[in-house]
Amino acid sequence: MSTSAMRDYLDGPHKAARDVVRAGLGAHADLGDLAVRLPRDEYRDRILDLLLQSAKDGLPARGYPKEYGGEADLGGFIAAFETLAFGDLSLMVKAGVQFGLFAGAIQHLGTEKHHERYLADAISGRLLGCFAMTETGHGSNVQALGTTATYDEATGEFVVHTPSAAARKDYIGNAARHGRMAAVFAQLIVGGESHGVHCLLVPIRGADGAALPGVTLSDCGPKLGLNGVDNGRIVFDQVRVPRDALLDRYAQVDADGNYSSAIENPDRRFFTMLGTLVQGRVSVGGAAINASKVALTIAIRYGAQRRQFGAPGSSEEAILLDYRMHQRRLLPLLARTYALHFAQAELVEEFARVFDDDEGEHDRRALEAQAAGTKALGTWHATETIQMCREACGGAGYLAENRLAALKADTDVFTTFEGDNTVLLQLVAKGLLTDYRESFGKLDPLGTARFVAAQAVEIAVEKAALRPLIERLRDVVPNRSDAADPDGGLRDDAYHSGLLRFREQHMLSGVARRLKGGIDAGDDPFDVFNRCQDHVIAAGRAHVDRIVLEAFQTAVRNAPEEIRPRLQDVYDLHALATIEAERAWYLEHGRLSPGRSKAITALVNELCAVVRPAAVELVDAFGVPGSATEVPMVVPSQHE
Amino acid sequence: MSTSAMRDYLDGPHKAARDVVRAGLGAHADLGDLAVRLPRDEYRDRILDLLLQSAKDGLPARGYPKEYGGEADLGGFIAAFETLAFGDLSLMVKAGVQFGLFAGAIQHLGTEKHHERYLADAISGRLLGCFAMTETGHGSNVQALGTTATYDEATGEFVVHTPSAAARKDYIGNAARHGRMAAVFAQLIVGGESHGVHCLLVPIRGADGAALPGVTLSDCGPKLGLNGVDNGRIVFDQVRVPRDALLDRYAQVDADGNYSSAIENPDRRFFTMLGTLVQGRVSVGGAAINASKVALTIAIRYGAQRRQFGAPGSSEEAILLDYRMHQRRLLPLLARTYALHFAQAELVEEFARVFDDDEGEHDRRALEAQAAGTKALGTWHATETIQMCREACGGAGYLAENRLAALKADTDVFTTFEGDNTVLLQLVAKGLLTDYRESFGKLDPLGTARFVAAQAVEIAVEKAALRPLIERLRDVVPNRSDAADPDGGLRDDAYHSGLLRFREQHMLSGVARRLKGGIDAGDDPFDVFNRCQDHVIAAGRAHVDRIVLEAFQTAVRNAPEEIRPRLQDVYDLHALATIEAERAWYLEHGRLSPGRSKAITALVNELCAVVRPAAVELVDAFGVPGSATEVPMVVPSQHE
Repeated sequence: MSTSAMRDYLDGPHKAARDVVRAGLGAHADLGDLAVRLPRDEYRDRILDLLLQSAKDGLPARGYPKEYGGEADLGGFIAAFETLAFGDLSLMVKAGVQFGLFAGAIQHLGTEKHHERYLADAISGRLLGCFAMTETGHGSNVQALGTTATYDEATGEFVVHTPSAAARKDYIGNAARHGRMAAVFAQLIVGGESHGVHCLLVPIRGADGAALPGVTLSDCGPKLGLNGVDNGRIVFDQVRVPRDALLDRYAQVDADGNYSSAIENPDRRFFTMLGTLVQGRVSVGGAAINASKVALTIAIRYGAQRRQFGAPGSSEEAILLDYRMHQRRLLPLLARTYALHFAQAELVEEFARVFDDDEGEHDRRALEAQAAGTKALGTWHATETIQMCREACGGAGYLAENRLAALKADTDVFTTFEGDNTVLLQLVAKGLLTDYRESFGKLDPLGTARFVAAQAVEIAVEKAALRPLIERLRDVVPNRSDAADPDGGLRDDAYHSGLLRFREQHMLSGVARRLKGGIDAGDDPFDVFNRCQDHVIAAGRAHVDRIVLEAFQTAVRNAPEEIRPRLQDVYDLHALATIEAERAWYLEHGRLSPGRSKAITALVNELCAVVRPAAVELVDAFGVPGSATEVPMVVPSQHE
Repeated sequence: MSTSAMRDYLDGPHKAARDVVRAGLGAHADLGDLAVRLPRDEYRDRILDLLLQSAKDGLPARGYPKEYGGEADLGGFIAAFETLAFGDLSLMVKAGVQFGLFAGAIQHLGTEKHHERYLADAISGRLLGCFAMTETGHGSNVQALGTTATYDEATGEFVVHTPSAAARKDYIGNAARHGRMAAVFAQLIVGGESHGVHCLLVPIRGADGAALPGVTLSDCGPKLGLNGVDNGRIVFDQVRVPRDALLDRYAQVDADGNYSSAIENPDRRFFTMLGTLVQGRVSVGGAAINASKVALTIAIRYGAQRRQFGAPGSSEEAILLDYRMHQRRLLPLLARTYALHFAQAELVEEFARVFDDDEGEHDRRALEAQAAGTKALGTWHATETIQMCREACGGAGYLAENRLAALKADTDVFTTFEGDNTVLLQLVAKGLLTDYRESFGKLDPLGTARFVAAQAVEIAVEKAALRPLIERLRDVVPNRSDAADPDGGLRDDAYHSGLLRFREQHMLSGVARRLKGGIDAGDDPFDVFNRCQDHVIAAGRAHVDRIVLEAFQTAVRNAPEEIRPRLQDVYDLHALATIEAERAWYLEHGRLSPGRSKAITALVNELCAVVRPAAVELVDAFGVPGSATEVPMVVPSQHE
């Protein structure tokens, strides 16, 4: 296998965008320990400097229209952004707030007047902004936000107000120190009538950096990680902004106080506006996967050098990565990182296609589900992988200089921000239970249960189409004597996707039946949903597992001949480790015999040994800057 | 259920010792955020102040003999020490280094002259010391340490020396800033002959705080957590210490350079000296379990107040802890924390008994295995629980002020220090494969394989005694219509322990057979061991799972009537969640039918709902100081 060929294949169509960021990170060799070296405010200011430098280097411009200084290359933009995760994650998150969320809200929710006035300044960093959605009382349930924006016909202004302690904007990036303006999500009230959550641009700081009248800003204080990002709180006391502060792409208010929107259904309107979040989710998922690559690069390079114990009498101890347990702990995670990488690459292309073409609502919904699922699995994967890598490096992994500490602390919040993972997997499952319908747009549990009961069960059950799948799931005798197929079909791609598809469809139809059964029995719809909640989330996860597996299959098929055999081994390890992790379910549902289940475990062990000799090349192919020579990990052997 | 009755029962015989520490922690209300508020050196000095205060309060004295100012109450000492984990964990770890490891080495490895000279000063904190075992090149494999202590007959001194970069003492607590003396583990060389690792007391700093001649001290720098502990590195350049610096309880060197020891076998001698580590493992396991209690107290109190989503149209959103998924994530971990608490309490009593009575070697071995296993499961449990609690608190869990950040960072290293968990579980499994024999004392894989092949297989297989167990594992039809036993026997204690015992014995005999088979086939012993390594570790874990389960059963049986029914529910949740987690194995081995396996999952869900109403009382019973009123968690409801 050629490492550079593997790296080129992983980098894919956006190699140039990734390499620009790699070079930029490589130029700042001191980035590794900013968090421990600088006092918090200095750290934040240094991250701001780096943010502005990245703007000069053209990072955000890639994602925006040419008329505002951009390059209109959305895929390259996301790829570049993900690559920031190879460096300091505070920079990645602050860039996400500024160039993704704040500038993105202006572009996607605003109209030409907003673009003209603000977009160039937002993507150059001249206008630093916040994305003020989350409140102390509401993170996941955005539709229930408490902040109000009330239209005052007399003056032609909106009055932005925080009516309660729970309605305080909270955890807002750029709010504590640097932001001058905020994209504020608030309940829009016009003529005494509430039209649901909309977004307005509200200045929060003057040129001198002081809070503007009526705006109270405070600091969230030290956090577990990401201390280079100035998260803060915003309270509004009857703050007045002009009528055109409303980002009015999807809904308008005229001077006389007439509200109008091309999207009549308020729920559908809300979810359309929320669609701007998809870019953030795509980016965070990608960043999490890349953070996993950094951790694995460190731990696998360490494990390939470090010796401990071994056969006594031998002059050398054994290399950690030659121990089965060490392989078992790290190599399936390496394989899953490859799988998620390819799933993420597919998602980025789909994102660029859907957003570039401004395509139909159905595509958007599908994209949102795909983004939600990949974000959930990618961020949980990062938490698990970084933890395992830390343990695999022992005491050395605990020292700040070796980066795992910062990776662990900084990525931890990824599982709950930009959408809590459990909420996102529910979203995925709901999307699968039916094609999108207006009445099914609500995120709330009741909406789901009612809708499923009324309309969707038959479709879902029909879609399951279990019969043909079952026929493909041959339960052949493991280890049978067939020279052409020594693994008894266990390395057959179709067998893997067959199992994962069966699981997904079976869970989905099971959920649909349970929901319908509960409603038919006259039970309280919330209780009906709640009884199935773990089942719903498991079904969402099963779906994403299958999507990820099939993305990896496609990537192997399309790979250059030079690297395909190696990639196939990594794929097989991922596929079988995924099935092994859920083997209880397959055993319970008669899709694995006990003997075959044990054969899968044995084969995962074998595949670890197969992948082991290429492990260092496989992490080098990630192209983490400095990893080949500079990972600052002390690895003296016992003879040094 | 009475919370105070439950708390009294949890506190057990060492309630007074625990309460003294609780009161001490409660008196320092500013402890919560030292790590983020103070620069590192100030933080370290503040922790030293608190350490000295705890000595004045009598914490360490509890564990030491009366003739040196102590109280000879080992159980109370460990209980008090564990309770420190309710506060700042740097204090707990620094206290462990000073009062557990350093003073413990003097007491257990030294003789009267060392006790007379140093013990009172060590337990008062007047003499601050290090436990210098780990080296850069060797953490787990202590027998291969590189530091040497060579006897010079001419002067009657030992020459302590660091012969290579890998032999540098590393991660040593108290070394970077405060320690004046170190208990140094080194290869003892007398008359040109090496006698293996022994321990000597070596002064490292003068009264002025500067390193002594020949000693080079440096700082490990910032760490992921525990930054209140001054971990450092020590390099010795031909440092001379008098002959009586050798802690000579188990081996002596006379003035003429004659080495003698009552323990002839060098391996046995080494492991006897290493027995001093058992106290550290007992303490760290207990501290980890207590750190889990702090995290659960925060997350469960938060989840019982915080609302999000719910039935639309309802005036209130639903409480997080009423969601099935939220219960599923937190309540089995709460139940396992109870289980581990009781297992730890048993271990502490056994520790006090064995050390007080200075009993036979067999008891020591058994205790060491029990301590190793409880430490491994307790510390992994802490990592998992604190992570889950952080996620369950969303963004609020990420703020430093809410303690989960510090808990997560500080406890992370517990899984790899005081013995890497994977190494410890191997130790447990090896102890089970045979009674202790001299020739089986070596930690190395080869020793195991050879010994098992030669002597132990028959015993292990015989001990397995599988037949009677199998007969007890009735696979009754779940949900059968039996009013007296609506759960189909699933809540029967004997059924639970039967399953866990079957699993333990089956895995153990399987490992024994595989080891013997490989050796008999003439394979390389290291390869034979390595092929089974995951199996060996799983067997060790299965054993500890069973010990923990049965400790909980005993605790329920002995509980006062007032709290027994509630404790039984928590026990059932723990037992069934434990079986559920390993249901794939039971299905593979024909001990669960698919239907019964699904019934167990359904029953875990039900038991979560049963335990839910008492969840807050169950965490309040832990008695985390300040938890009832002061957990600094912002939880405004949406109407505030």
